[in-house]
Amino acid sequence: MIEVIAFDADDTLWHNERHYTEAKEIFTKILARYHDERWIEEKLDSTELQNLNRYGYGIKSFALSMIETAIHLTEGRITGNEIQEVIAIAWDMLRKPMEIFDGVRDTISALAETYKVLLITKGDLFEQEAKIARSGIGEYFSSIEIVSEKTPQSYQAILNKHQVQPQNFVMVGNSLKSDILPVLAIGGIGIYIPFETTWVHELVPEEELADKDFIRLASISHVPVMLASLTSPVS
Amino acid sequence: MIEVIAFDADDTLWHNERHYTEAKEIFTKILARYHDERWIEEKLDSTELQNLNRYGYGIKSFALSMIETAIHLTEGRITGNEIQEVIAIAWDMLRKPMEIFDGVRDTISALAETYKVLLITKGDLFEQEAKIARSGIGEYFSSIEIVSEKTPQSYQAILNKHQVQPQNFVMVGNSLKSDILPVLAIGGIGIYIPFETTWVHELVPEEELADKDFIRLASISHVPVMLASLTSPVS
Repeated sequence: MIEVIAFDADDTLWHNERHYTEAKEIFTKILARYHDERWIEEKLDSTELQNLNRYGYGIKSFALSMIETAIHLTEGRITGNEIQEVIAIAWDMLRKPMEIFDGVRDTISALAETYKVLLITKGDLFEQEAKIARSGIGEYFSSIEIVSEKTPQSYQAILNKHQVQPQNFVMVGNSLKSDILPVLAIGGIGIYIPFETTWVHELVPEEELADKDFIRLASISHVPVMLASLTSPVS
Repeated sequence: MIEVIAFDADDTLWHNERHYTEAKEIFTKILARYHDERWIEEKLDSTELQNLNRYGYGIKSFALSMIETAIHLTEGRITGNEIQEVIAIAWDMLRKPMEIFDGVRDTISALAETYKVLLITKGDLFEQEAKIARSGIGEYFSSIEIVSEKTPQSYQAILNKHQVQPQNFVMVGNSLKSDILPVLAIGGIGIYIPFETTWVHELVPEEELADKDFIRLASISHVPVMLASLTSPVS
Protein backbone atom coordinates (compact mmCIF):
# COMPACT_ATOMS: atom_id res chain seq x y z
CA MET A 1 0.00 0.00 0.00
CA ILE A 2 1.33 3.42 -0.95
CA GLU A 3 1.11 5.80 2.03
CA VAL A 4 3.34 8.72 1.18
CA ILE A 5 3.97 10.34 -2.18
CA ALA A 6 6.68 12.94 -2.42
CA PHE A 7 7.40 15.43 -5.19
CA ASP A 8 10.55 17.18 -6.24
CA ALA A 9 9.98 20.90 -6.95
CA ASP A 10 12.33 22.47 -9.54
CA ASP A 11 11.48 21.30 -13.08
CA THR A 12 8.99 18.80 -11.64
CA LEU A 13 6.35 21.27 -10.40
CA TRP A 14 7.61 24.47 -11.98
CA HIS A 15 10.19 25.88 -14.38
CA ASN A 16 13.69 26.38 -13.00
CA GLU A 17 16.42 25.28 -15.40
CA ARG A 18 14.97 27.69 -17.98
CA HIS A 19 15.89 30.62 -15.76
CA TYR A 20 19.49 29.45 -15.56
CA THR A 21 19.62 28.97 -19.34
CA GLU A 22 18.28 32.48 -19.91
CA ALA A 23 20.70 33.87 -17.35
CA LYS A 24 23.64 32.22 -19.09
CA GLU A 25 22.62 33.83 -22.39
CA ILE A 26 22.62 37.30 -20.84
CA PHE A 27 25.92 36.58 -19.11
CA THR A 28 27.44 35.50 -22.41
CA LYS A 29 26.33 38.75 -24.04
CA ILE A 30 27.95 40.83 -21.29
CA LEU A 31 31.25 39.05 -21.94
CA ALA A 32 30.84 38.94 -25.74
CA ARG A 33 33.54 41.56 -26.35
CA TYR A 34 36.09 39.45 -24.49
CA HIS A 35 35.46 35.88 -25.67
CA ASP A 36 33.38 33.68 -27.93
CA GLU A 37 30.11 32.29 -26.65
CA ARG A 38 30.98 28.61 -26.47
CA TRP A 39 34.12 29.23 -24.44
CA ILE A 40 32.30 31.46 -21.95
CA GLU A 41 29.61 28.82 -21.43
CA GLU A 42 32.10 26.01 -20.92
CA LYS A 43 34.08 28.02 -18.43
CA LEU A 44 30.95 29.03 -16.49
CA ASP A 45 29.72 25.42 -16.36
CA SER A 46 33.02 24.15 -15.00
CA THR A 47 33.27 26.97 -12.43
CA GLU A 48 29.71 26.21 -11.29
CA LEU A 49 30.47 22.52 -10.82
CA GLN A 50 33.71 23.24 -8.98
CA ASN A 51 31.92 25.64 -6.67
CA LEU A 52 29.14 23.22 -5.66
CA ASN A 53 31.31 21.85 -2.88
CA ARG A 54 32.23 25.32 -1.78
CA TYR A 55 28.86 27.08 -1.97
CA GLY A 56 26.09 24.49 -2.42
CA TYR A 57 23.18 24.99 -4.87
CA GLY A 58 21.13 28.03 -5.72
CA ILE A 59 21.12 31.45 -7.31
CA LYS A 60 23.61 33.07 -4.90
CA SER A 61 26.14 30.34 -5.70
CA PHE A 62 25.43 30.79 -9.39
CA ALA A 63 25.92 34.57 -9.08
CA LEU A 64 29.31 34.11 -7.40
CA SER A 65 30.30 31.61 -10.09
CA MET A 66 29.33 34.06 -12.84
CA ILE A 67 31.38 36.83 -11.22
CA GLU A 68 34.39 34.54 -10.75
CA THR A 69 34.14 33.36 -14.36
CA ALA A 70 33.90 36.92 -15.64
CA ILE A 71 37.02 37.97 -13.73
CA HIS A 72 38.94 34.89 -14.82
CA LEU A 73 37.98 35.11 -18.50
CA THR A 74 38.94 38.78 -18.71
CA GLU A 75 42.09 38.34 -16.64
CA GLY A 76 40.71 40.91 -14.24
CA ARG A 77 39.95 43.48 -16.95
CA ILE A 78 36.20 43.28 -16.43
CA THR A 79 34.85 46.56 -15.04
CA GLY A 80 32.89 47.08 -11.87
CA ASN A 81 29.93 48.22 -13.92
CA GLU A 82 29.95 45.02 -15.95
CA ILE A 83 30.01 42.99 -12.73
CA GLN A 84 27.04 45.00 -11.51
CA GLU A 85 25.23 43.85 -14.67
CA VAL A 86 26.09 40.26 -13.75
CA ILE A 87 24.69 40.77 -10.22
CA ALA A 88 21.52 42.18 -11.80
CA ILE A 89 21.06 38.86 -13.64
CA ALA A 90 20.85 37.11 -10.26
CA TRP A 91 18.45 39.75 -8.92
CA ASP A 92 16.13 39.08 -11.87
CA MET A 93 16.30 35.34 -11.26
CA LEU A 94 15.40 35.79 -7.58
CA ARG A 95 12.19 37.62 -8.43
CA LYS A 96 11.08 35.59 -11.47
CA PRO A 97 7.37 34.80 -11.35
CA MET A 98 6.65 31.13 -10.68
CA GLU A 99 5.59 29.19 -13.77
CA ILE A 100 3.77 26.12 -12.46
CA PHE A 101 3.50 23.25 -14.97
CA ASP A 102 0.12 22.30 -16.44
CA GLY A 103 -1.80 19.80 -14.35
CA VAL A 104 0.31 20.25 -11.21
CA ARG A 105 -2.26 21.97 -9.03
CA ASP A 106 -5.09 19.53 -9.91
CA THR A 107 -2.87 16.49 -9.50
CA ILE A 108 -1.38 17.50 -6.16
CA SER A 109 -4.70 18.60 -4.67
CA ALA A 110 -6.38 15.34 -5.79
CA LEU A 111 -3.56 13.18 -4.38
CA ALA A 112 -3.64 15.07 -1.08
CA GLU A 113 -7.13 13.64 -0.47
CA THR A 114 -5.86 10.04 -0.52
CA TYR A 115 -2.17 10.13 0.39
CA LYS A 116 0.19 12.02 2.60
CA VAL A 117 1.87 14.31 0.06
CA LEU A 118 5.36 15.72 0.69
CA LEU A 119 7.55 18.17 -1.15
CA ILE A 120 11.24 17.24 -1.06
CA THR A 121 13.62 19.69 -2.65
CA LYS A 122 17.33 20.25 -2.46
CA GLY A 123 19.12 23.54 -2.60
CA ASP A 124 19.25 26.89 -0.90
CA LEU A 125 16.81 27.01 2.05
CA PHE A 126 16.00 30.70 1.71
CA GLU A 127 15.45 30.55 -2.06
CA GLN A 128 13.39 27.34 -1.99
CA GLU A 129 11.14 28.63 0.81
CA ALA A 130 10.55 31.82 -1.15
CA LYS A 131 9.60 29.85 -4.28
CA ILE A 132 7.22 27.56 -2.38
CA ALA A 133 5.55 30.60 -0.81
CA ARG A 134 5.19 32.30 -4.19
CA SER A 135 3.95 29.12 -5.89
CA GLY A 136 0.62 29.19 -4.05
CA ILE A 137 0.54 25.38 -3.88
CA GLY A 138 2.46 24.91 -0.64
CA GLU A 139 -0.77 24.30 1.27
CA TYR A 140 -1.35 20.92 -0.45
CA PHE A 141 1.79 19.42 1.08
CA SER A 142 1.54 17.98 4.56
CA SER A 143 5.27 18.61 5.00
CA ILE A 144 8.02 20.40 3.10
CA GLU A 145 11.54 19.03 3.37
CA ILE A 146 14.46 21.09 2.11
CA VAL A 147 17.76 19.22 2.11
CA SER A 148 21.23 20.28 1.03
CA GLU A 149 21.71 17.05 -1.01
CA LYS A 150 19.36 14.24 -2.00
CA THR A 151 21.14 11.09 -0.86
CA PRO A 152 19.90 7.68 0.37
CA GLN A 153 20.68 8.98 3.88
CA SER A 154 18.68 12.18 3.53
CA TYR A 155 15.70 10.23 2.11
CA GLN A 156 15.93 7.67 4.90
CA ALA A 157 15.87 10.46 7.50
CA ILE A 158 12.68 11.84 5.93
CA LEU A 159 11.07 8.38 5.90
CA ASN A 160 11.99 7.90 9.56
CA LYS A 161 10.53 11.27 10.46
CA HIS A 162 7.24 10.39 8.75
CA GLN A 163 7.32 6.80 9.98
CA VAL A 164 6.82 5.27 6.56
CA GLN A 165 8.44 2.11 5.20
CA PRO A 166 10.35 2.48 1.89
CA GLN A 167 7.99 0.08 0.07
CA ASN A 168 5.11 2.44 0.93
CA PHE A 169 6.96 5.53 -0.30
CA VAL A 170 6.90 6.98 -3.83
CA MET A 171 9.17 9.79 -5.03
CA VAL A 172 8.28 11.74 -8.19
CA GLY A 173 10.87 13.90 -9.91
CA ASN A 174 12.75 14.91 -13.03
CA SER A 175 16.23 13.95 -11.88
CA LEU A 176 17.40 10.34 -12.04
CA LYS A 177 20.41 11.30 -9.95
CA SER A 178 18.58 13.12 -7.15
CA ASP A 179 14.98 11.86 -7.20
CA ILE A 180 15.13 8.25 -8.43
CA LEU A 181 18.45 6.46 -7.77
CA PRO A 182 18.79 7.37 -4.05
CA VAL A 183 15.15 6.38 -3.44
CA LEU A 184 15.63 3.02 -5.18
CA ALA A 185 18.76 2.52 -3.08
CA ILE A 186 16.70 2.50 0.13
CA GLY A 187 13.92 0.33 -1.32
CA GLY A 188 11.43 3.03 -2.30
CA ILE A 189 9.50 3.49 -5.54
CA GLY A 190 10.64 6.06 -8.12
CA ILE A 191 8.51 7.83 -10.72
CA TYR A 192 10.67 9.64 -13.23
CA ILE A 193 9.12 12.47 -15.26
CA PRO A 194 11.81 13.72 -17.61
CA PHE A 195 12.02 17.42 -18.33
CA GLU A 196 13.20 19.02 -21.57
CA THR A 197 16.56 20.14 -20.14
CA THR A 198 18.63 18.37 -17.51
CA TRP A 199 21.45 20.24 -15.84
CA VAL A 200 24.76 18.59 -16.68
CA HIS A 201 25.40 18.00 -12.97
CA GLU A 202 22.26 15.83 -12.74
CA LEU A 203 23.01 13.55 -15.70
CA VAL A 204 23.44 9.83 -15.00
CA PRO A 205 25.42 7.50 -17.28
CA GLU A 206 23.24 4.82 -18.91
CA GLU A 207 25.18 1.97 -17.29
CA GLU A 208 24.14 3.12 -13.82
CA LEU A 209 20.51 2.50 -14.86
CA ALA A 210 21.11 -0.99 -16.27
CA ASP A 211 19.66 -2.98 -13.36
CA LYS A 212 17.25 -0.38 -12.00
CA ASP A 213 13.44 -0.67 -11.81
CA PHE A 214 11.48 2.55 -11.90
CA ILE A 215 8.43 4.10 -13.54
CA ARG A 216 8.70 6.69 -16.27
CA LEU A 217 5.72 8.96 -16.99
CA ALA A 218 5.27 11.65 -19.63
CA SER A 219 3.30 13.98 -17.38
CA ILE A 220 2.57 14.62 -13.72
CA SER A 221 -1.13 14.27 -14.61
CA HIS A 222 -0.54 10.53 -15.11
CA VAL A 223 0.61 10.01 -11.52
CA PRO A 224 -2.81 9.35 -9.89
CA VAL A 225 -3.73 6.56 -12.35
CA MET A 226 -0.32 4.97 -11.97
CA LEU A 227 -0.56 5.10 -8.17
CA ALA A 228 -4.03 3.51 -8.28
CA SER A 229 -2.63 0.65 -10.35
CA LEU A 230 0.27 0.25 -7.89
CA THR A 231 -2.05 -0.08 -4.93
CA SER A 232 -4.51 -2.53 -6.54
CA PRO A 233 -3.37 -6.13 -7.06
CA VAL A 234 -2.49 -6.96 -10.67
CA SER A 235 -4.77 -9.80 -11.78
CA MET B 1 9.22 19.66 33.92
CA ILE B 2 11.77 20.64 31.28
CA GLU B 3 11.81 18.05 28.50
CA VAL B 4 13.60 19.69 25.61
CA ILE B 5 16.52 22.09 25.69
CA ALA B 6 17.55 23.74 22.45
CA PHE B 7 20.72 25.66 21.63
CA ASP B 8 21.46 28.30 19.06
CA ALA B 9 24.76 27.69 17.25
CA ASP B 10 26.57 30.81 15.97
CA ASP B 11 28.12 32.78 18.86
CA THR B 12 26.38 30.50 21.35
CA LEU B 13 28.39 27.31 20.71
CA TRP B 14 31.17 28.69 18.53
CA HIS B 15 32.65 31.89 17.15
CA ASN B 16 30.93 33.39 14.13
CA GLU B 17 30.57 37.18 14.33
CA ARG B 18 34.34 37.41 14.77
CA HIS B 19 34.81 36.04 11.24
CA TYR B 20 32.54 38.73 9.81
CA THR B 21 34.37 41.43 11.76
CA GLU B 22 37.74 40.21 10.46
CA ALA B 23 36.35 39.98 6.93
CA LYS B 24 35.11 43.58 7.10
CA GLU B 25 38.58 44.74 8.13
CA ILE B 26 40.17 43.07 5.10
CA PHE B 27 37.43 44.42 2.85
CA THR B 28 38.05 47.93 4.16
CA LYS B 29 41.76 47.62 3.40
CA ILE B 30 41.04 46.57 -0.20
CA LEU B 31 38.95 49.71 -0.67
CA ALA B 32 41.25 51.96 1.36
CA ARG B 33 42.52 53.83 -1.71
CA TYR B 34 38.98 54.84 -2.65
CA HIS B 35 37.34 55.82 0.65
CA ASP B 36 37.85 56.22 4.38
CA GLU B 37 37.27 53.27 6.66
CA ARG B 38 34.20 54.46 8.52
CA TRP B 39 32.28 55.26 5.34
CA ILE B 40 33.09 51.86 3.79
CA GLU B 41 31.87 50.05 6.91
CA GLU B 42 28.65 52.04 7.09
CA LYS B 43 27.90 51.42 3.44
CA LEU B 44 28.61 47.69 3.74
CA ASP B 45 26.38 47.37 6.82
CA SER B 46 23.46 49.07 5.11
CA THR B 47 23.89 47.02 1.91
CA GLU B 48 23.96 43.85 4.00
CA LEU B 49 20.76 44.74 5.83
CA GLN B 50 19.00 45.71 2.59
CA ASN B 51 20.03 42.43 0.99
CA LEU B 52 18.70 40.19 3.81
CA ASN B 53 15.28 40.15 2.18
CA ARG B 54 16.79 39.44 -1.18
CA TYR B 55 19.39 36.82 -0.29
CA GLY B 56 18.81 35.60 3.27
CA TYR B 57 21.67 35.07 5.76
CA GLY B 58 25.11 33.58 5.34
CA ILE B 59 28.51 34.01 3.77
CA LYS B 60 27.35 33.90 0.14
CA SER B 61 24.93 36.75 0.83
CA PHE B 62 27.69 38.63 2.61
CA ALA B 63 30.05 38.07 -0.34
CA LEU B 64 27.50 39.47 -2.79
CA SER B 65 26.93 42.46 -0.49
CA MET B 66 30.67 43.15 -0.31
CA ILE B 67 30.96 43.03 -4.10
CA GLU B 68 27.95 45.31 -4.56
CA THR B 69 29.31 47.76 -1.99
CA ALA B 70 32.73 47.77 -3.65
CA ILE B 71 31.22 48.57 -7.06
CA HIS B 72 28.95 51.25 -5.64
CA LEU B 73 31.62 52.98 -3.56
CA THR B 74 34.05 53.13 -6.49
CA GLU B 75 31.37 54.11 -8.99
CA GLY B 76 32.28 51.03 -10.98
CA ARG B 77 36.01 51.81 -11.04
CA ILE B 78 36.94 48.79 -8.91
CA THR B 79 38.97 46.30 -10.93
CA GLY B 80 38.17 42.66 -11.56
CA ASN B 81 41.28 41.68 -9.65
CA GLU B 82 40.17 43.64 -6.61
CA ILE B 83 36.79 41.92 -6.74
CA GLN B 84 38.59 38.59 -6.87
CA GLU B 85 40.28 39.62 -3.61
CA VAL B 86 36.84 40.28 -2.14
CA ILE B 87 35.64 36.82 -3.24
CA ALA B 88 38.74 35.33 -1.61
CA ILE B 89 37.62 36.84 1.72
CA ALA B 90 34.43 34.75 1.48
CA TRP B 91 36.41 31.63 0.53
CA ASP B 92 38.52 32.06 3.67
CA MET B 93 35.40 32.47 5.80
CA LEU B 94 33.89 29.27 4.36
CA ARG B 95 36.88 27.19 5.43
CA LYS B 96 37.61 28.81 8.80
CA PRO B 97 38.32 26.19 11.48
CA MET B 98 35.55 25.91 14.06
CA GLU B 99 36.35 27.56 17.39
CA ILE B 100 34.05 25.94 19.93
CA PHE B 101 33.55 27.96 23.13
CA ASP B 102 34.95 26.67 26.42
CA GLY B 103 32.61 24.36 28.29
CA VAL B 104 30.33 23.69 25.32
CA ARG B 105 31.20 20.06 24.71
CA ASP B 106 31.00 19.07 28.40
CA THR B 107 27.74 20.95 28.93
CA ILE B 108 25.97 19.60 25.86
CA SER B 109 27.10 16.02 26.42
CA ALA B 110 26.01 16.14 30.08
CA LEU B 111 22.60 17.63 29.23
CA ALA B 112 22.05 15.01 26.53
CA GLU B 113 21.94 12.36 29.27
CA THR B 114 18.90 13.95 30.92
CA TYR B 115 17.08 15.98 28.29
CA LYS B 116 16.29 15.85 24.61
CA VAL B 117 18.82 18.35 23.26
CA LEU B 118 18.20 20.18 19.97
CA LEU B 119 20.26 22.54 17.88
CA ILE B 120 18.20 25.31 16.27
CA THR B 121 20.03 27.63 13.95
CA LYS B 122 18.98 30.08 11.30
CA GLY B 123 20.76 30.86 8.10
CA ASP B 124 22.13 29.19 5.03
CA LEU B 125 21.36 25.44 5.05
CA PHE B 126 24.53 24.42 3.23
CA GLU B 127 26.84 26.57 5.34
CA GLN B 128 25.24 25.64 8.66
CA GLU B 129 25.33 21.90 7.88
CA ALA B 130 29.00 22.21 6.97
CA LYS B 131 29.77 23.97 10.26
CA ILE B 132 27.88 21.43 12.34
CA ALA B 133 29.75 18.61 10.59
CA ARG B 134 33.11 20.29 11.20
CA SER B 135 32.26 21.13 14.83
CA GLY B 136 32.43 17.48 15.91
CA ILE B 137 29.62 18.00 18.44
CA GLY B 138 26.66 17.30 16.14
CA GLU B 139 26.28 13.80 17.61
CA TYR B 140 25.07 15.15 20.96
CA PHE B 141 21.94 16.67 19.44
CA SER B 142 18.94 14.44 18.96
CA SER B 143 17.78 16.70 16.14
CA ILE B 144 19.19 19.63 14.18
CA GLU B 145 16.78 22.24 12.90
CA ILE B 146 17.93 24.80 10.37
CA VAL B 147 15.37 27.52 9.67
CA SER B 148 15.52 30.55 7.41
CA GLU B 149 14.22 32.85 10.19
CA LYS B 150 13.63 32.35 13.91
CA THR B 151 10.03 33.45 14.44
CA PRO B 152 7.31 32.35 16.89
CA GLN B 153 5.88 30.31 13.96
CA SER B 154 9.13 28.52 13.18
CA TYR B 155 9.66 27.68 16.88
CA GLN B 156 6.06 26.47 17.19
CA ALA B 157 6.58 24.17 14.18
CA ILE B 158 9.65 22.67 15.86
CA LEU B 159 7.76 22.17 19.13
CA ASN B 160 4.92 20.45 17.25
CA LYS B 161 7.36 18.18 15.47
CA HIS B 162 8.94 17.12 18.77
CA GLN B 163 5.59 17.02 20.56
CA VAL B 164 6.67 19.24 23.41
CA GLN B 165 4.61 21.90 25.19
CA PRO B 166 6.14 25.41 25.32
CA GLN B 167 6.34 25.37 29.13
CA ASN B 168 8.58 22.28 28.88
CA PHE B 169 10.86 23.88 26.29
CA VAL B 170 14.00 25.93 26.94
CA MET B 171 15.91 27.85 24.27
CA VAL B 172 19.50 28.96 24.92
CA GLY B 173 21.13 31.59 22.73
CA ASN B 174 23.03 34.85 22.36
CA SER B 175 20.39 36.76 20.41
CA LEU B 176 17.45 38.37 22.21
CA LYS B 177 15.80 38.96 18.84
CA SER B 178 16.14 35.42 17.45
CA ASP B 179 16.57 33.11 20.44
CA ILE B 180 14.64 34.69 23.30
CA LEU B 181 11.74 36.97 22.25
CA PRO B 182 10.08 34.56 19.74
CA VAL B 183 10.34 31.71 22.29
CA LEU B 184 8.77 33.84 25.04
CA ALA B 185 6.03 34.79 22.56
CA ILE B 186 4.87 31.16 22.34
CA GLY B 187 5.18 30.54 26.09
CA GLY B 188 8.61 28.90 26.20
CA ILE B 189 11.55 29.59 28.51
CA GLY B 190 14.51 31.66 27.28
CA ILE B 191 18.09 31.54 28.53
CA TYR B 192 20.09 34.45 27.18
CA ILE B 193 23.89 34.17 27.14
CA PRO B 194 25.21 37.47 25.77
CA PHE B 195 28.23 37.41 23.51
CA GLU B 196 30.86 40.13 23.22
CA THR B 197 29.60 41.39 19.83
CA THR B 198 26.03 41.44 18.58
CA TRP B 199 25.35 42.01 14.92
CA VAL B 200 23.46 45.28 14.44
CA HIS B 201 20.61 43.36 12.79
CA GLU B 202 20.06 41.33 15.98
CA LEU B 203 19.88 44.28 18.40
CA VAL B 204 16.63 44.78 20.32
CA PRO B 205 15.58 48.17 21.75
CA GLU B 206 15.39 48.18 25.54
CA GLU B 207 11.67 49.03 25.57
CA GLU B 208 10.84 45.73 23.86
CA LEU B 209 12.32 43.94 26.87
CA ALA B 210 10.44 45.95 29.49
CA ASP B 211 7.79 43.34 30.35
CA LYS B 212 9.76 40.20 29.42
CA ASP B 213 10.82 37.38 31.79
CA PHE B 214 13.89 35.44 30.85
CA ILE B 215 17.08 34.06 32.35
CA ARG B 216 20.48 35.59 31.70
CA LEU B 217 23.62 33.52 32.26
CA ALA B 218 27.27 34.47 31.93
CA SER B 219 28.34 31.12 30.52
CA ILE B 220 26.91 28.03 28.87
CA SER B 221 28.54 26.03 31.69
CA HIS B 222 25.92 27.46 34.07
CA VAL B 223 23.00 25.99 32.11
CA PRO B 224 22.80 22.56 33.84
CA VAL B 225 22.59 24.05 37.36
CA MET B 226 19.98 26.56 36.22
CA LEU B 227 17.93 23.80 34.58
CA ALA B 228 18.10 21.68 37.71
CA SER B 229 16.75 24.60 39.73
CA LEU B 230 13.95 25.11 37.19
CA THR B 231 12.82 21.51 37.42
CA SER B 232 12.91 21.21 41.20
CA PRO B 233 10.17 22.97 43.18
CA VAL B 234 11.33 26.16 44.87
CA SER B 235 10.69 25.73 48.58
